[in-house]
Amino acid sequence: MSKRLGKRTLLLPSAPAVAASAAVVGQKEGEGPLKECFDYISDDSRFGEETWEKAESRMLRQCFELSCQKAGLSPAAMDFVFAGDLLNQCVSSSFALKDSALPYFGLYGACSTMAESLTLAALLLDGGFGHTACALTGSHFCSAERQYRFPLEYGGQRCPTSQWTVTGAGSVILQSGGAGPRVTHVTPGAIVDAGIKDANAMGAAMAPAALDTLLAHFKDTGRSPRDYDAIFTGDLGALGHDLLQKLMADEGYELDCTYMDCGVLLYDLATQDVHAGGSGCGCSASVLAGHILRGMEKGVWNRVLFAATGALMSPLTAQQGASIPGICHAVVLENRRLSHAD
Amino acid sequence: MSKRLGKRTLLLPSAPAVAASAAVVGQKEGEGPLKECFDYISDDSRFGEETWEKAESRMLRQCFELSCQKAGLSPAAMDFVFAGDLLNQCVSSSFALKDSALPYFGLYGACSTMAESLTLAALLLDGGFGHTACALTGSHFCSAERQYRFPLEYGGQRCPTSQWTVTGAGSVILQSGGAGPRVTHVTPGAIVDAGIKDANAMGAAMAPAALDTLLAHFKDTGRSPRDYDAIFTGDLGALGHDLLQKLMADEGYELDCTYMDCGVLLYDLATQDVHAGGSGCGCSASVLAGHILRGMEKGVWNRVLFAATGALMSPLTAQQGASIPGICHAVVLENRRLSHAD
Repeated sequence: MSKRLGKRTLLLPSAPAVAASAAVVGQKEGEGPLKECFDYISDDSRFGEETWEKAESRMLRQCFELSCQKAGLSPAAMDFVFAGDLLNQCVSSSFALKDSALPYFGLYGACSTMAESLTLAALLLDGGFGHTACALTGSHFCSAERQYRFPLEYGGQRCPTSQWTVTGAGSVILQSGGAGPRVTHVTPGAIVDAGIKDANAMGAAMAPAALDTLLAHFKDTGRSPRDYDAIFTGDLGALGHDLLQKLMADEGYELDCTYMDCGVLLYDLATQDVHAGGSGCGCSASVLAGHILRGMEKGVWNRVLFAATGALMSPLTAQQGASIPGICHAVVLENRRLSHAD
Repeated sequence: MSKRLGKRTLLLPSAPAVAASAAVVGQKEGEGPLKECFDYISDDSRFGEETWEKAESRMLRQCFELSCQKAGLSPAAMDFVFAGDLLNQCVSSSFALKDSALPYFGLYGACSTMAESLTLAALLLDGGFGHTACALTGSHFCSAERQYRFPLEYGGQRCPTSQWTVTGAGSVILQSGGAGPRVTHVTPGAIVDAGIKDANAMGAAMAPAALDTLLAHFKDTGRSPRDYDAIFTGDLGALGHDLLQKLMADEGYELDCTYMDCGVLLYDLATQDVHAGGSGCGCSASVLAGHILRGMEKGVWNRVLFAATGALMSPLTAQQGASIPGICHAVVLENRRLSHAD
């Protein structure tokens, strides 16, 4: 059986299954609409550490260990870990796993890292290179603010299109065989540069990448949005969510109320002062590991398209006047075995 | 056939082959002992761009395009590109490929990125997910200096154990089938933290990671250093090279003169004022793509262990007093088909 569908989409005949997932978030995230979905809500933004960067790393390690516990597995059972984050040189991930002795692949997919790590973990398992793999990512509001924008103490004003970097992490353990939701297809992202230069309008910068990947996915598979019980983008926010709906409509695809954005779901936009919604690696990661996979386990959704989005910029590229390229990796999760008809 | 050998090593039964490789370097690198091996030596450190970061990106794009030309392939023939670099948020890679419309996996493996990208590209091809994939990485002395240490204008003094970030890029195109050197095994790295805190002694920080991966590789495969015509580490430099020899000797493995370090090979350490040798993603990348693969094509070496090393730190972790964890991914390249006896 060919493992390629059309130009971009890959088929995973063995459909690796989610053995367990864990979501760890901060206090603000734990006060939002999804509060019941998270495994751990920390009331200490430093997670017991001295700095926010160390806190981010501690949160990631806690989330990883929790997912192992939930799967009933020792961390040593992981054949690979795929992880990444937003910090310069991805240090929160590498420091989180530095004493694990596990085969480690560091990724940088910006806020798309949950889907990128899940994609590569699933492909390696389907390729027969292992039995168990972990996809791990997260972000921290305070470390992201001072790296990308201003130190919190500065008290900088935020504009209406800006988003709120999620303090949160998600860890998903995949296994060959098993009974959880399965990864049946992936559509890796290509970089899309729509020329947006406003670093306070990330939703606008990333929506064209989401459009590109969704169009590739639907074209490759012959499916339409109606073939999914739910479609989730990562962190387009309210602005990007609506923009993607419009862009898709222009291409003849209707994204109705089954289309949601993790950054819109995670907070109460009316009361939590997050402006256009959540963002950061931890946004789609914690919503996938907490909300989406729990919903699939309960049968709320049986076939989901998870399309995490990322903005591949840096403060330096913004300072040098460059545009903000985006990327979107999409993963299909299904509550059943792959049949030959697929 | 199982694709796992022992605890960490993976076997690639289809042994994807190198279709072409390209190495692009700066002037200093082009004046060193390997000058005949590079495809392009730029006498302009800005590669025609306004900033060093844009120069780094331009160099990567040029290197990628050159490797496609050498393979006789359109860039559009790539099923995937795996790329990463040292800049914050890995922007030189993503900007290099932003208009390519190719499926893109961003990596962060610090200076081990050439081996990490080669590993994942080879595994995805062996897994049947594509026919052609590219592994791309590089670094630039000037962008690295101002990000990690000081702006060049500051004229900071360098200590004897320090290394020189290579201005260079390497691009390797792998294909299923074909006649070039083949990837037969990979041993993914685990993070090793030996507690070294001196950011001017990267060789010492990374040597324990190289030790860990080499020991895992030899244990898993039942091989010894004598089974390889040559073993290359990425950028341990003169200090780390000798340290690794000592550490391996303590474990009962002799690394003789067939063991070399890309950072030692790339410059004339006696005359080029690079102190302990070359470093950076571009170090092992340009030496692999230029020197090692050319040597294999000429039959100088028929079985090579390429073990690129990386330091998973950031300026911020150093400022916060953290140690420098290292990682080393190893790839076996062979000039023949894999036999059942392997």
